[in-house]
Amino acid sequence: MDKAQDGHPEGYRVLTHDDIPAYIAGVPAIVAQLGGGPADWTVRDVADGNLNAVYLVDGPAGGVCVKQALPYVRVHHDWPLAVERALFEHAYMVRLDPFVGRGAPQLYHFDPTLFTIVMEKLEPHIILRKGLIEGRHLPKAAPDTATFIANATFNTSDLAAPFERKFEDIAHFARNQALLRITMDLVLTDPYREVWRNRYVRPHMEGWAASFRSDIELKTAVARHRIGFLTNTQALIHGDLHSGSVMVTEDDTRVIDGEFASYGPIGLDTGAFIANLIMSWYAHGAYDRPEADRRAYRDWILEQIAIFWATFRDRFLTLWENATEAGDAYPADYFTDTAGKARLATIRRDYLDGIFADTVAFAALKMNRRIIGYAQIADYLVIEDLERRARAQAPALALARALLTRPERFADIAAILDAIPRFERAGLDPDAARHL
Amino acid sequence: MDKAQDGHPEGYRVLTHDDIPAYIAGVPAIVAQLGGGPADWTVRDVADGNLNAVYLVDGPAGGVCVKQALPYVRVHHDWPLAVERALFEHAYMVRLDPFVGRGAPQLYHFDPTLFTIVMEKLEPHIILRKGLIEGRHLPKAAPDTATFIANATFNTSDLAAPFERKFEDIAHFARNQALLRITMDLVLTDPYREVWRNRYVRPHMEGWAASFRSDIELKTAVARHRIGFLTNTQALIHGDLHSGSVMVTEDDTRVIDGEFASYGPIGLDTGAFIANLIMSWYAHGAYDRPEADRRAYRDWILEQIAIFWATFRDRFLTLWENATEAGDAYPADYFTDTAGKARLATIRRDYLDGIFADTVAFAALKMNRRIIGYAQIADYLVIEDLERRARAQAPALALARALLTRPERFADIAAILDAIPRFERAGLDPDAARHL
Ligand SMILES: Nc1ncnc2c1ncn2[C@@H]1O[C@H](COP(=O)(O)OP(=O)(O)OP(=O)(O)O)[C@@H](O)[C@H]1O
Ligand SMILES: Nc1ncnc2c1ncn2[C@@H]1O[C@H](COP(=O)(O)OP(=O)(O)OP(=O)(O)O)[C@@H](O)[C@H]1O
Ligand SMILES: [Mg+2]
Ligand SMILES: [Mg+2]
Repeated sequence: MDKAQDGHPEGYRVLTHDDIPAYIAGVPAIVAQLGGGPADWTVRDVADGNLNAVYLVDGPAGGVCVKQALPYVRVHHDWPLAVERALFEHAYMVRLDPFVGRGAPQLYHFDPTLFTIVMEKLEPHIILRKGLIEGRHLPKAAPDTATFIANATFNTSDLAAPFERKFEDIAHFARNQALLRITMDLVLTDPYREVWRNRYVRPHMEGWAASFRSDIELKTAVARHRIGFLTNTQALIHGDLHSGSVMVTEDDTRVIDGEFASYGPIGLDTGAFIANLIMSWYAHGAYDRPEADRRAYRDWILEQIAIFWATFRDRFLTLWENATEAGDAYPADYFTDTAGKARLATIRRDYLDGIFADTVAFAALKMNRRIIGYAQIADYLVIEDLERRARAQAPALALARALLTRPERFADIAAILDAIPRFERAGLDPDAARHL
Repeated sequence: MDKAQDGHPEGYRVLTHDDIPAYIAGVPAIVAQLGGGPADWTVRDVADGNLNAVYLVDGPAGGVCVKQALPYVRVHHDWPLAVERALFEHAYMVRLDPFVGRGAPQLYHFDPTLFTIVMEKLEPHIILRKGLIEGRHLPKAAPDTATFIANATFNTSDLAAPFERKFEDIAHFARNQALLRITMDLVLTDPYREVWRNRYVRPHMEGWAASFRSDIELKTAVARHRIGFLTNTQALIHGDLHSGSVMVTEDDTRVIDGEFASYGPIGLDTGAFIANLIMSWYAHGAYDRPEADRRAYRDWILEQIAIFWATFRDRFLTLWENATEAGDAYPADYFTDTAGKARLATIRRDYLDGIFADTVAFAALKMNRRIIGYAQIADYLVIEDLERRARAQAPALALARALLTRPERFADIAAILDAIPRFERAGLDPDAARHL
């Protein structure tokens, strides 16, 4: 990548809100889609994430979404971040297009100079996290996201195709280093050490943060899964699949924002999604809502976790059972007779159990990072009273610690559903929560 | 890579024996090293492997080794094979140079058009396999190879350096696809299915070959490790580290022929080496040698296996304990207090136990492929009587089956040393060997 004098790639510049119409005018296909000309278009800045600029553009005939990678963290301008991340978000969309159907926004245009993606405008979709905070029942979100992950990961794993294609992809996504470094540091390392970026609720969560830093069992488990992230090229994963990366309506679901894509353990994606449902469950305990509504919504969340896992598992197994082309993991001429077919069924169950074990661990890691680490989530931030917020966070940490250090207690999704309410008794003293 | 009309890269041609002096004359640094001019140089064709052309060139002042990748398998001209493999052999040498010292021949020159490597001429070194067949005591071979593997793999793992460097390498070596396909097919798949390339001793080994094809437990274990090979980017591995890839004298050892290099499980390298010592042990049972010599040499081989593993383990642990820069697996600020340091010692033992488990499995896979698969080894081929040869092979398969399907019986190297003589009772009937 050629770097201009300011350290950005040649020709790169940050587009402002006012630059957008002129920029779009230079892309004929998009002009046709919007209808009219620049003077007829309205531009809305909808960036609410941490990293990038996002605009929605509407014209007489239609609308598009324009996302540009900025050369720094959007919410933290003196934290530089390589704009090349857009290459990987784009590559992720392109690679998955054959498999996920309308599970992601359609890609219209990629600009490798300005690191801009123009894609389908999702409207009236809302970010799932927002829906969860508002207590909305969004029946398709969990099963559709599960289906998306199953489609994406099965088809890019060694179960689906000869390794050559996967290794080509690995060669490409292994270069997504700026964002993988963020996952390494902010998600998988920081919550267990002292570092300026950690932003837990002070002073209330000091006890938990300190206990995590000194918990050798926990850090041993964390390191094991960090190695898993670094060495297990199981499938192409999204890498940041929390409830802020899913846009929904009552009957449509789209996964956005694949800029953290890499080859890694499938459980990182399934775990991220479940983690954010679990944190939503705990956060709801501190929202000012009528008790009956709260109870009903929490039950709905638990149900979504169950549906999410069941849907993922069924879809993954169905894809495997019906695959016409075998990957190198299980060549077509292995396990062909009756006994072999029975064994293959066992192998498939074991494979899914392996993904489940990773799901449990990465769900825990994702909760810890959202509560102790840099990037806090709105589900908790909307709880203004810090003590209340902390008390809604502590159970998630207590559960996460158990998920990581006592995985044998969580062999199936029922065990997790069972544990979520039980761990609510955890408070600000981490030691007192050890018996849960 | 530009392809010329004949399907080879632009400018590529096969060098014959007679082309070598003129070719060398075009590389000034090498000319200086040899002394004199083309007329003063002698060229010896020493290719004894399956794939490439290798020449030794001597001049008045010194000698070099010239290795060219051919566009086909050298021993099988109608089997095309991408010459790009030389890129990876070269990259492997370059990448490991800082870590392995004189554990490999020195690299003098790489020609990316003719896919030729010019390197240090190893003389009077012999190929370790030849030494083993001749019953020579080569005291440095096992410990030096162990040290080489430890140096190479520790330093390219997530234990030694931040992931960015490793991921750059992964991106490069993931393109070594022609040779990884060979490992996938010939090593990890073919011995358990019917395919023209399998070349086991007929009819004597039909029973074993058939039993492998129908052994569901075995194929389940094989598939698990094949997935390990495809998904575990633990470290930069040689990928073909048998006794034909090690050149030795009484006091010097060099690992050659890294063209199969990739990021993979470390146990594939340690397992390959041990597998070839085990097969040598069994083969010696069928050599015409005085019984006392044979017994002494077999004891020496068992001792080398023990020394190999102990040396690898110690060296790897020593590198880890003394590493000045921590990799992302265990950041420097984790496990710093007394309890943490004690835990780190446990973590290190567990990590080495993990490598050992892979070593056991890949040793088994490597034996199976040399006995049932395409590429047979001289250790067995020198046994002219086919029945005798088969009877010296059956124990290796019986042991391999146990290593793969009953790994819990082989928790340490002592268990393997113990099993090797015990499995010698295995004969041509695979069922009769099940109780061993
Ligand atoms: N295709 C789209 N259609 C409509 N709105 C979108 C679309 N893509 C993104 N948005 C809006 O822009 C916001 C930010 O998008 P996105 O999450 O991709 O950005 P980001 O900066 O990468 O966020 P993060 O900090 O999570 O990495 C979303 O929350 C959503 O509201
Ligand atoms: N640096 C060297 N100095 C002296 N002889 C060498 C050197 N490198 C290779 N040789 C000789 O050439 C032979 C073939 O080398 P090598 O194993 O690298 O070739 P190959 O065709 O890749 O073999 P394989 O079939 O194992 O892949 C060796 O067995 C050895 O005898
Ligand atoms: Mg993002
Ligand atoms: Mg070779």
